[in-house]
Amino acid sequence: MYQLILSNVAKHISLTEEEELFFLSLLKLKTIKRKEFLLKEGGVSRYQTFVAKGCLRTYTIDDMGKEHIVMFSPEDWWSGDMYSFITGKPAAYTIDALVKTDIIQISKNNLEKLYEKIPKFERFFRMLFQNAFVIYQNRITSNLSQKANERHKQFIKTYPGLEQKIAQKYIASFLGVTPEFYSAMKQK
Amino acid sequence: MYQLILSNVAKHISLTEEEELFFLSLLKLKTIKRKEFLLKEGGVSRYQTFVAKGCLRTYTIDDMGKEHIVMFSPEDWWSGDMYSFITGKPAAYTIDALVKTDIIQISKNNLEKLYEKIPKFERFFRMLFQNAFVIYQNRITSNLSQKANERHKQFIKTYPGLEQKIAQKYIASFLGVTPEFYSAMKQK
Repeated sequence: MYQLILSNVAKHISLTEEEELFFLSLLKLKTIKRKEFLLKEGGVSRYQTFVAKGCLRTYTIDDMGKEHIVMFSPEDWWSGDMYSFITGKPAAYTIDALVKTDIIQISKNNLEKLYEKIPKFERFFRMLFQNAFVIYQNRITSNLSQKANERHKQFIKTYPGLEQKIAQKYIASFLGVTPEFYSAMKQK
Repeated sequence: MYQLILSNVAKHISLTEEEELFFLSLLKLKTIKRKEFLLKEGGVSRYQTFVAKGCLRTYTIDDMGKEHIVMFSPEDWWSGDMYSFITGKPAAYTIDALVKTDIIQISKNNLEKLYEKIPKFERFFRMLFQNAFVIYQNRITSNLSQKANERHKQFIKTYPGLEQKIAQKYIASFLGVTPEFYSAMKQK
């Protein structure tokens, strides 16, 4: 599991062995069961979470009780309610596991220690957020201007292989269509 | 104008006078007229752009020729097609000025020089993207789950004072409603 997060970090910065050890000493491993909550709307997000195995989903529930999925975090992705994590205010999102999921977490305090001791991590998270920004920008555009089948193509590009790993109803929800429509669309 | 961008940077990091001068030496000032393009879809975004005065909009045009506004960049905001800037590939967005706009730009090469010489800027841009991520996350949620009047409230919170500065049709487009519906909604 540690190897996975080190490879994730190595995509953007190189660490010495000593730096790796310090980084790993700040992390916490956890396994969450299918349908277990990592965060509930209204709670406070105190961790940045890396997914080593499985898949998390981040969603919100509207006044009509309908779920809206904002993002998936499959293996090798990060997750968290960033607004709540930064401000310490109540989270707008709920995060749960779609399958049994192994995660690696870093608390806000430990992340500050990390930035202080190994400033290269500023670069790492700068690049991480930069990429997340691009993904979200695409998501906004495709919600605004694209047809469901275009959004489906975009989904496959963003999350290669995920379609086979999680229940179809979640993908339908992410795409903003009914499960029936999604299933008909897939067959075409 | 330089004072504005220095204040923007000072929100997240402190610079020595020497660092300020180095930073300023990498920047380019420009004024763009109302309706002038900063970037066209398909072009390559070579700059990160700070708005010192005025307002830019970032938008995309769908197959039906309809414009969809992804973000506004009023005074003290940053702008750019991040995907194109990072990858050097064609931009998905068009950026133009809604009013006469004074901008300050930094090129990709100069930004790399800046990160190298003053690594604190990694922190600055990390925080900038972190905040942008939160704004986009809110935008996605409000598009998915909120009614037009909730989206309007969110708009006012994100862009205080902007409603009085730009044409109403742009705000209607951003909210995904017709100008007539927007105007009726505002009166309530």
